[in-house]
Amino acid sequence: MAQNRVGLWLIGAFGGVGSTVALGLCAMARGLVGETGLVSSLPLFEGLPLPAAGDFVIGGHEIRKTTFEEAVEEFRAASGVFERDWITACRAELDEASRRVRPGTTLGAGPTIQKLSTWAPDDSGLSPRAVIDRLGADLDAFASSEKLEHVIVLNVSSTEPPFPAGPALEHYSALEQALKTSKDPVAPASTLYAVAALERGYTYINFTPSLGASCPALAELAESTNALVAGKDGKTGETLLKTVLAPMFAQRNLQVMSWVGHNIFGNRDGIVLEDPVNKSSKVVTKDRVVTGILGYKPATVVSIEYVPDMGDWKTAWDHIHFTGFLNCKMTLQFTWQGCDSLLAAPLAIDLARLAHLERLRGGRGLMRHLASFFKSPEGVEEHDYFKQFDLLADYARKARETR
Amino acid sequence: MAQNRVGLWLIGAFGGVGSTVALGLCAMARGLVGETGLVSSLPLFEGLPLPAAGDFVIGGHEIRKTTFEEAVEEFRAASGVFERDWITACRAELDEASRRVRPGTTLGAGPTIQKLSTWAPDDSGLSPRAVIDRLGADLDAFASSEKLEHVIVLNVSSTEPPFPAGPALEHYSALEQALKTSKDPVAPASTLYAVAALERGYTYINFTPSLGASCPALAELAESTNALVAGKDGKTGETLLKTVLAPMFAQRNLQVMSWVGHNIFGNRDGIVLEDPVNKSSKVVTKDRVVTGILGYKPATVVSIEYVPDMGDWKTAWDHIHFTGFLNCKMTLQFTWQGCDSLLAAPLAIDLARLAHLERLRGGRGLMRHLASFFKSPEGVEEHDYFKQFDLLADYARKARETR
Amino acid sequence: MAQNRVGLWLIGAFGGVGSTVALGLCAMARGLVGETGLVSSLPLFEGLPLPAAGDFVIGGHEIRKTTFEEAVEEFRAASGVFERDWITACRAELDEASRRVRPGTTLGAGPTIQKLSTWAPDDSGLSPRAVIDRLGADLDAFASSEKLEHVIVLNVSSTEPPFPAGPALEHYSALEQALKTSKDPVAPASTLYAVAALERGYTYINFTPSLGASCPALAELAESTNALVAGKDGKTGETLLKTVLAPMFAQRNLQVMSWVGHNIFGNRDGIVLEDPVNKSSKVVTKDRVVTGILGYKPATVVSIEYVPDMGDWKTAWDHIHFTGFLNCKMTLQFTWQGCDSLLAAPLAIDLARLAHLERLRGGRGLMRHLASFFKSPEGVEEHDYFKQFDLLADYARKARETR
Amino acid sequence: MAQNRVGLWLIGAFGGVGSTVALGLCAMARGLVGETGLVSSLPLFEGLPLPAAGDFVIGGHEIRKTTFEEAVEEFRAASGVFERDWITACRAELDEASRRVRPGTTLGAGPTIQKLSTWAPDDSGLSPRAVIDRLGADLDAFASSEKLEHVIVLNVSSTEPPFPAGPALEHYSALEQALKTSKDPVAPASTLYAVAALERGYTYINFTPSLGASCPALAELAESTNALVAGKDGKTGETLLKTVLAPMFAQRNLQVMSWVGHNIFGNRDGIVLEDPVNKSSKVVTKDRVVTGILGYKPATVVSIEYVPDMGDWKTAWDHIHFTGFLNCKMTLQFTWQGCDSLLAAPLAIDLARLAHLERLRGGRGLMRHLASFFKSPEGVEEHDYFKQFDLLADYARKARETR
Repeated sequence: MAQNRVGLWLIGAFGGVGSTVALGLCAMARGLVGETGLVSSLPLFEGLPLPAAGDFVIGGHEIRKTTFEEAVEEFRAASGVFERDWITACRAELDEASRRVRPGTTLGAGPTIQKLSTWAPDDSGLSPRAVIDRLGADLDAFASSEKLEHVIVLNVSSTEPPFPAGPALEHYSALEQALKTSKDPVAPASTLYAVAALERGYTYINFTPSLGASCPALAELAESTNALVAGKDGKTGETLLKTVLAPMFAQRNLQVMSWVGHNIFGNRDGIVLEDPVNKSSKVVTKDRVVTGILGYKPATVVSIEYVPDMGDWKTAWDHIHFTGFLNCKMTLQFTWQGCDSLLAAPLAIDLARLAHLERLRGGRGLMRHLASFFKSPEGVEEHDYFKQFDLLADYARKARETR
Repeated sequence: MAQNRVGLWLIGAFGGVGSTVALGLCAMARGLVGETGLVSSLPLFEGLPLPAAGDFVIGGHEIRKTTFEEAVEEFRAASGVFERDWITACRAELDEASRRVRPGTTLGAGPTIQKLSTWAPDDSGLSPRAVIDRLGADLDAFASSEKLEHVIVLNVSSTEPPFPAGPALEHYSALEQALKTSKDPVAPASTLYAVAALERGYTYINFTPSLGASCPALAELAESTNALVAGKDGKTGETLLKTVLAPMFAQRNLQVMSWVGHNIFGNRDGIVLEDPVNKSSKVVTKDRVVTGILGYKPATVVSIEYVPDMGDWKTAWDHIHFTGFLNCKMTLQFTWQGCDSLLAAPLAIDLARLAHLERLRGGRGLMRHLASFFKSPEGVEEHDYFKQFDLLADYARKARETR
Repeated sequence: MAQNRVGLWLIGAFGGVGSTVALGLCAMARGLVGETGLVSSLPLFEGLPLPAAGDFVIGGHEIRKTTFEEAVEEFRAASGVFERDWITACRAELDEASRRVRPGTTLGAGPTIQKLSTWAPDDSGLSPRAVIDRLGADLDAFASSEKLEHVIVLNVSSTEPPFPAGPALEHYSALEQALKTSKDPVAPASTLYAVAALERGYTYINFTPSLGASCPALAELAESTNALVAGKDGKTGETLLKTVLAPMFAQRNLQVMSWVGHNIFGNRDGIVLEDPVNKSSKVVTKDRVVTGILGYKPATVVSIEYVPDMGDWKTAWDHIHFTGFLNCKMTLQFTWQGCDSLLAAPLAIDLARLAHLERLRGGRGLMRHLASFFKSPEGVEEHDYFKQFDLLADYARKARETR
Repeated sequence: MAQNRVGLWLIGAFGGVGSTVALGLCAMARGLVGETGLVSSLPLFEGLPLPAAGDFVIGGHEIRKTTFEEAVEEFRAASGVFERDWITACRAELDEASRRVRPGTTLGAGPTIQKLSTWAPDDSGLSPRAVIDRLGADLDAFASSEKLEHVIVLNVSSTEPPFPAGPALEHYSALEQALKTSKDPVAPASTLYAVAALERGYTYINFTPSLGASCPALAELAESTNALVAGKDGKTGETLLKTVLAPMFAQRNLQVMSWVGHNIFGNRDGIVLEDPVNKSSKVVTKDRVVTGILGYKPATVVSIEYVPDMGDWKTAWDHIHFTGFLNCKMTLQFTWQGCDSLLAAPLAIDLARLAHLERLRGGRGLMRHLASFFKSPEGVEEHDYFKQFDLLADYARKARETR
């Protein structure tokens, strides 16, 4: 039924996460694969009106000229994931979805991302407002041609450099003005996409550490349009483990002296993170969680290194040195070998499904119950993964009770 | 004040855990070391009438002829823990405590433990009841000479072989009869100690996987004397991590295909666990938790190997192989390098402190709120460490509210 | 040219190693893949008349009814290796090779291997000699129909249980007699294949820990027919590392206290090694090397566990605990994640190429210069990998000088 | 006998390596500890006239005001090594040795090292020659008061920043001139010490990556005085493993795609290496060895991070990603947990013993046979540890034959 169709607009559509989301939804809809990795498929959510894989209509923005099929085939070859049979079987759907992807913008995305662009128009002479209007027109055309009542905009593009806080980001009236007139960049690309979504009342979810909607001005905008918002920075691997293990040290009163984490990986995101400025956005959110949970700051090292042959396989080594009873020094080490996009994609789908549910339930504003999905959960101080998950479980229980 | 003195009777007093408890309490009482590693020293318990380190009076049973001082010095030399200065400073208290340790029993403890004995009398001709009476007389003498109103009996001795369930363990009346007359062993040594404690209304806590009070007959006995009971098998290292990490896999809907855990260590407990029969008691409790949390049984391997040069340093390597989205196979490995007795001793002290608190609050029977301390928590099905900890936190909050 | 065609007869042809050898030779011959992993392709061997990939004609014995194509496709699906394109491209060659594979025997192979058989005839009523004659007839037919002047027989089948030494294995005259008349098994299956090869003057190479030609009786036989022999037990992963790292400890005068090695994997070989009797053959050769290199016996643990979901990915965790200067205890741990058949297959091809070279050079008997390929090198006491490799390098240099 | 007394002059005497050398020699001389960790105590060197532990007379230069006893006690407390009994037993010898340590220089050692100085005089107004003369006078006084015929000068001080090559370092005549007159620093501190040693014909050994005697000018100087020289940068832990493992990959024709190495540690050397300039000296030598052995450059990451709570325990995680047969990607990871000074000190003693032997044998100039001790062996291109060791073994065999 048409009313079940959910528009899912991916910023960075042909990237690792975006293209895995596309292939994954198609393959699930065809029954080729199961729902392993989807939090929203846990028994906890049984009976709730979550959209099925086949209910999603995919579109998006992208700065590199390619297609979903090429992207997943490249990914398969580099990282040894996916069955080629799935790609073959889903070719028609992927082609359709590829045709719904439109050129994005690199305005304010920083030089390293700009270098990757092969498709985004040169927006350097335009006002941010003009760019937003172009992006927004793409959203409108998507909704209209696909007869979608609503669109969920999901940022799965590369990490931007940190964007300095400024007065224009404090109030939407100031930002609105600056977008029209300022010659300086007043907001990064991720925020331009967010404005385009939120001013239409569309849901905006930020799976990256980029600024997106994470400033008072955009919170104001979302409130004024009753839009739903969630973010930021999907918690997929090493940081997930930090927020799982740190509570154990805290609750056992073991004193963490140092927590060292080294990450290596080789996907396109890695090229962007080679730029130390872009990397700094990521390291900050990865580092903060341990201190937040323990209540004190141990010595920490967080590194992310680009090692091309690793492909999408994010390998993390963490070394945790702690003091126990009678000053005894002990060690926990772990090695995490996860395929980053395959960890991220199901969470991105979960977020879209749960945002849809929240909209059906009449929600608006920040979705705090989604904190467990994010490294830097907006509006939630808690970093303990299990306490964050309790927020989600409570939400699900209430949603089931109030059906 | 005399009323603050808490009798702590250690079964297996001169073992790694027992002697670390003794040294630890003395060193804390003297202010030589802090309270790192003590769960009961978390802010959660602030303001509750928990006994201080100096409030404990230590005694115990043991089957090897040695002293606390010799035991901790031997431990220091083998495992590189403790400062010799602490031992020197605490010599007088340790000597006093050593004099309060009495020969235990090996009746029903199995041949491997019996081989370690250099001090336990030959009880093989006696009825279990006669042995219980001797052990109980030691408890009475301890309480009387130290003017203790109550005694907490804590089993920190070596792991016994599994003891087959039988009708005598089902009802206390049957057991009572069998203890007097049976020529077959009707209960293992750990249970004889438990009977001696519980029939006096004393608290019995089982930090080992041995049977102890974990049978219907002893539950009946405890009820009849209003005694407090907790157990069993302290959750100190690798299993703790299993119960911390498995919930993450469950909540992220990641399918664990196999969980392999190899443990190596070289303390005296290791000699006992070299006997495959004794080892089987341990492996069962270590293995069960993962299945309990996940709700399905992945392939599992659990090994415990005695490697003498490791001393008390329990090193565990766990390899967790799981399937994520789109059948992608990923891996988490961890290596845990913990000093086993130094991890166990503070938990043993916690249990004694919290049992004392519960007694002050008028509690009786099974202390289910202590589940987070045990691999096989009696009376609690939940294995998720954080849900177990919630039980404790709820308890502490209530205790503070009702003061 | 016909004279370049080299007959390669694989015992256990459709197993992981055998089928990877087949696919690998075809894919190399077609130029689809390079020579990475082949020792015999090092510059060291340049200019020597080694056979090329396309020179080999493959046949073999097998006890399971399948084909090379099915075997490599099953392997691909379970372990995520190979490109399907290669299989498609090589289909014709693989089909031809599959047709050259004949039913083997399970006589004397032990019950666990016998259970795997779906194709081997029931030889239980036959004399070993009758079985040898059948196997030999297959070799003759292969040589004749393919016009091969010589055949290299390579054992890559599953590990048999250890076979007890007996008088019949001491002298070929005694063995010859017993093969005809004895009702007891006088030799394991691997030895029957070896007799069939050696009595024809064919080369026999044992890549497994099974007995094969490793007894005085077969050495005598080989000598009488001028046959070439090498073995046993290919050194592919964890044991290779042991023989690489142990010399470092020895040469740095660091005292190894314990060397613990745990291996997990899930291929068909794993099912056979689940049987503790078959496993014992393997563990013995894996354990011996460390002591051989160090000159003293540290505490050792060697385990091999079958974990089905691991597929062909042999993962080993080794923990080496050693004493340095001033009694300081230190640790080296490694984790090896190797695809076993992909490590073994190129070495098997190397052995065939180098055996062919040695035949061209007029060699006979034990090929001691191949020691670096084996866990238990026949006729060589040295276990230090680099000293073993020096034997090979010296051989190659001499071979180049005497061309 | 007086003629057996060997002067050992430690630059950086009170550092981790220097003070461990001092304690180690004293403890060995008293028979408190064995010779584990000493390469020169291998059977290979039996019968050669190597000095015994008690033959060494220790002196040195240092920039921090402390004593050997304080240094080793501080080390013991921070890193949990040494028995306090040894320190007590060796107090008299350590005191004597401490009195023979003289203030060094920080001229040209860079700002980070200069900040650590609490004892070195302010040499900033002096010519390098004046400083050399002061340092040389200390050496003369040591030799004269201790009646030493010869002195071995061993640099075990902190790593200096890289020093740019310049014309003054090309020819000794130019350097000699510049040392007297130049206002710019013409050479780092390590080179000033080396000049003082070499112009007296004393042996100079550089255990650090600093410049020391590694320039043509000083090679000329050494030649003119027949002095012995060796260096540079002791190969103690992670780099040792690289030079042990890389040959295996090369000889098995496995293609290393990336070799990532992360090092964490917390000793004083770590404070110096926190300065990225000083660190760069170290990373260069650590990185070069892999490429040198493989013959091609894989992607590499080398990091050294200062984590204070690690003390002297250098923990390294290396991740080696390689391609095997049929493009199969595999992984080897290792974790090395070594106490750095305890690994370095015996090698420093070995170098002194072997330098003494070479002097007895009439040697002069660069001691190439000591390559296996160094990350950047002077005069030797070979990085393969075992080939380097062969140089030493050949030397030892010859020395034994020509006695």
